[in-house]
Amino acid sequence: MEHRSKCPIASTLDLVGDRWTLLVLRNIFRGSRRYGEHLESPEGIATNILADRLALLEREGLIEKVAYQTRPLRHEYRLTRKGADLLPVLQTLATWSMKHVPDRWAPSERFMHSRPEDFLAQD
Amino acid sequence: MEHRSKCPIASTLDLVGDRWTLLVLRNIFRGSRRYGEHLESPEGIATNILADRLALLEREGLIEKVAYQTRPLRHEYRLTRKGADLLPVLQTLATWSMKHVPDRWAPSERFMHSRPEDFLAQD
Repeated sequence: MEHRSKCPIASTLDLVGDRWTLLVLRNIFRGSRRYGEHLESPEGIATNILADRLALLEREGLIEKVAYQTRPLRHEYRLTRKGADLLPVLQTLATWSMKHVPDRWAPSERFMHSRPEDFLAQD
Repeated sequence: MEHRSKCPIASTLDLVGDRWTLLVLRNIFRGSRRYGEHLESPEGIATNILADRLALLEREGLIEKVAYQTRPLRHEYRLTRKGADLLPVLQTLATWSMKHVPDRWAPSERFMHSRPEDFLAQD
């Protein structure tokens, strides 16, 4: 991936600095592992954007595609350590809204107090 | 501002979920208060994007324009509490790069250990 500078803030934004990529990750943190489950999220992500962002996240090693069924072949997406380590970014984004944007949904206590390793597969 | 959903993560991204808005804030946290100083940042922000993002941040109450000279009239931008409260987002973005992207600039210890209130004007 091309980076605009060596600034560590800019470099993360080169990857996830758009309206959708972190929301796709949010879905996975909340348990959406299959493609179709992402389409149910309340923001109404378009299928072409979803496919593009899942491919980006897989290519950059933030998620991995794992077969969960062979006949027919079906895949699900799981967080890698690199992807799970974005959890504090999602938590701080949520904390800011809870303070500064009225009438938001409250994130679960469990989500807000989780650590990245809580989302890594045990197998 | 229109929000895609009441999700607190999505709601913050509605405002700052793009490649540039958080970098303009980064510049202000690093001491760029005047328009021209932003143009010196290493990512080479275009003037139309810079003007647009400063206007957005002011309109949404994350920064405020303060006159520092009257003849001729000159303004600078300062963080409000709402804007300063995005500091933990910038810190977590930087922390992730430092772990997962090779060869980044190290953020200063001072920046990484600051609190939002350290960036509010005393006057």
